[in-house]
Amino acid sequence: MTVSPSPSSGPFPSQLLAQVRDLVGESGVITEAEALAPFLAEQRGSYRGQAQICVLPATTQQLSAVMRLLYAAGIAMVPQGGNTGLCGGAVTNSPHEVILGTKRLRQVRAIDPENFTITVEAGCLLVEVQQAAQAVDRLFPLSLAAEGSCHIGGNLATNAGGTQVLRYGNARELVLGLEVVLPDGRVLTSLRGLRKDNTGYDLRQLFCGSEGTLGVITAAVLKLFPAPKAKVTALLALANLRAATEILALARSQTGDAVTGCELISRQALSMVLSHIPGTRDPLAQAHPWYLLLEATATEPSQPGERPGGVLTQRLEALLDEASDRGLILDAILAQHAGQSAELWRLRESIPEAQKPEGASLKHDISVPLSRVAELIERATALVQAAVPGVRVCAFGHIGDGNIHFNLSQPVGASKASFLAEREHLARLVHDLALSMNGSFSAEHGIGQLKREELVRYRSPVELELMRAIKHALDPKGLMNPGKVL
Amino acid sequence: MTVSPSPSSGPFPSQLLAQVRDLVGESGVITEAEALAPFLAEQRGSYRGQAQICVLPATTQQLSAVMRLLYAAGIAMVPQGGNTGLCGGAVTNSPHEVILGTKRLRQVRAIDPENFTITVEAGCLLVEVQQAAQAVDRLFPLSLAAEGSCHIGGNLATNAGGTQVLRYGNARELVLGLEVVLPDGRVLTSLRGLRKDNTGYDLRQLFCGSEGTLGVITAAVLKLFPAPKAKVTALLALANLRAATEILALARSQTGDAVTGCELISRQALSMVLSHIPGTRDPLAQAHPWYLLLEATATEPSQPGERPGGVLTQRLEALLDEASDRGLILDAILAQHAGQSAELWRLRESIPEAQKPEGASLKHDISVPLSRVAELIERATALVQAAVPGVRVCAFGHIGDGNIHFNLSQPVGASKASFLAEREHLARLVHDLALSMNGSFSAEHGIGQLKREELVRYRSPVELELMRAIKHALDPKGLMNPGKVL
Repeated sequence: MTVSPSPSSGPFPSQLLAQVRDLVGESGVITEAEALAPFLAEQRGSYRGQAQICVLPATTQQLSAVMRLLYAAGIAMVPQGGNTGLCGGAVTNSPHEVILGTKRLRQVRAIDPENFTITVEAGCLLVEVQQAAQAVDRLFPLSLAAEGSCHIGGNLATNAGGTQVLRYGNARELVLGLEVVLPDGRVLTSLRGLRKDNTGYDLRQLFCGSEGTLGVITAAVLKLFPAPKAKVTALLALANLRAATEILALARSQTGDAVTGCELISRQALSMVLSHIPGTRDPLAQAHPWYLLLEATATEPSQPGERPGGVLTQRLEALLDEASDRGLILDAILAQHAGQSAELWRLRESIPEAQKPEGASLKHDISVPLSRVAELIERATALVQAAVPGVRVCAFGHIGDGNIHFNLSQPVGASKASFLAEREHLARLVHDLALSMNGSFSAEHGIGQLKREELVRYRSPVELELMRAIKHALDPKGLMNPGKVL
Repeated sequence: MTVSPSPSSGPFPSQLLAQVRDLVGESGVITEAEALAPFLAEQRGSYRGQAQICVLPATTQQLSAVMRLLYAAGIAMVPQGGNTGLCGGAVTNSPHEVILGTKRLRQVRAIDPENFTITVEAGCLLVEVQQAAQAVDRLFPLSLAAEGSCHIGGNLATNAGGTQVLRYGNARELVLGLEVVLPDGRVLTSLRGLRKDNTGYDLRQLFCGSEGTLGVITAAVLKLFPAPKAKVTALLALANLRAATEILALARSQTGDAVTGCELISRQALSMVLSHIPGTRDPLAQAHPWYLLLEATATEPSQPGERPGGVLTQRLEALLDEASDRGLILDAILAQHAGQSAELWRLRESIPEAQKPEGASLKHDISVPLSRVAELIERATALVQAAVPGVRVCAFGHIGDGNIHFNLSQPVGASKASFLAEREHLARLVHDLALSMNGSFSAEHGIGQLKREELVRYRSPVELELMRAIKHALDPKGLMNPGKVL
């Protein structure tokens, strides 16, 4: 390999590569095409990474030394966790960018049940964090589809959402302290595990949700909660869409704020699941246009003589009676055991999979204040149906957070290509509407490279100026995950 | 009044003052000494403000125009809410600084019970926000001693804590959106009221806790919660200090995380209350060295046939039995009605008042991880008693957050002055210890001007560099609340 005169073109400078190897050891540098492939892939197939080098440091100190070196040499760096993001945020855009992978930073550094905290390294799988908490009778509530392969560092860097946000908050709300390597290799540490610490600016929250553009999160102190003792799940057939958030407000007030899941399912979405997902069946006797999957969690042990979750079940039953009396629901089923609860959740979780055999789909991850979700769905549906007659609206998702996955399946019999050609037009209609209703065009998936133009379109000039000022203050050379977010 | 050649010396430039008057009207500018006095006072008497002018804008637009003008003219600005802070953060340090008061920004702009949010202007009193929430059967949980006079804008700017942090978080955790006027008059708005919005850097959290050094918070969207239906309060005599956090962990797990207050009281503190606060009495038959005031809140309505809070009361009773069986407590009393509960809380809340007749006191607002609070108190007590024989340790506070007000009363009969002369020495001992245990030297009171040197001593160089870089990016002229925090 020849030494390139400039690190921004040609092969990677061999001397620099040798220095990196010295810092992290032979096993910490990947350059072989086959071994590199998984780091270059992107799960939706929209992007293809181009890096020649992936560095896998085993310690924060190693990462710090590598970044100090690369920053001084003017080499761009792309942090990557489990590479499960949906917006291309962890994908390299040039062969001269170096991937900084967190998979070897995988220790649970400490767990303190009495402080209700766990200290983990960035490369721990989300499921490993959940399990470590469970082992000491605690809950780490972050939960999402990719939990078996995503890294907690990536979850924090992208401020992941998921199904329990309603009760426990987004990823950023679960963070008490962070360890971050800044672009130039300096290490910022606040792994104190304190509930209260009013000493200067809150630097943590800058890194949560910044998608690796300000530094690399290497470790975090996370909040834990009392472990669940019983769950009660119900599927409700709504009298109308408007009833969904009214029922949620009632449920929060009547269960002691124990609602941990509140997911909307449209009949369209359920039909696709029933058609394509083996072993599913309609749990209610009749078809209804909208369903609500409601879950409440008891974290207190049952009383003497009470069956697990008995009091909570009574409260849910009373809620269903009241909702029925008030004409909010037409039918409902309360799961009688864990297996039945799992069946109900499977209906919800299979929707993206069930959309695939129905042809091309276009997805929108939008949010509005809860009180306007019904209006959002109704108006968005009218807009897209007028734009593409026959389009099938497959709306579902975390209505408890005001977050709807407004997915569209192509009209039956239409060409895939002609539907996909409407991508930008339909996104514009849906996003403009959400924003006009005080909403967001990316509720939980982030910006990455996919939604950069949307960010410029929808965030105010002042917001963008401030974000750029902060980016410049922390990464004046612009070497940290370039082309992402800003 | 003559026009000064430079705004940084001599009387305030009369032309500029006239322009400010044009922007906010006659009633929006205070220059008379008598009317200015309350804005210059500081409640502990440690500081005395020196401003000649206080501007009270009635709208965000007015404030923006005033700040644009002052920033261009190079005039320093000091935001002030209810002026109840404990660290001098809202006090002017030079007659050439202009006070920006928020008291006329006092509208509740919107309340949305279904979205569980309220949108308020910065000058609303905290108690007004609580009451507005209550009126729609919701809870705004921030609660602290000054709630009748502090402004919500100040609460957010200082990231206020208080008694319910344990269950609902600090002030910053209650914010969904902010409106902020930046030092140069630009208005940053994120009043969207969204639970999920992953679109770029989280700018909100920079302003929460920045104590007015980065801009002026003018409005906020705040989270609401289901309103409490019943409260259960108990006072426990601890077998030892270590038992406090063990009982809390048990209580969180056994009540469905319904613990909303967990306050430590030392016998020394209780004795002072019983001696000096009229109408108080020891609720337990014998004296004990440490007490825990525990409160749990039911937000669900009672079941048919259940008295309000009946299930929660049973759970608390079971908890007390278990704690007794395990040797964690020696005695306990469960309040039987609201009046008795108020009596128990009064014992805790009267501690600062009861310290006053006991002579000089020195206060420390420290925190550590919950699992180390007992160790902190024991080691700090040994240190200060060795340094000042006879010093009376009056430790109390929010042990549920790991936050202790480690207050010291002078030795009986010693001179006030000689005790106060130990201020820096004792603070060094206590703060060094807290920091050596991963703790904080200012858990909830902030930095202001009182603790700037501590900030430099205890935060790492990298943290300070980042804070300064952010300050410079947002306020390059350094005109926003100068001499505070950094």
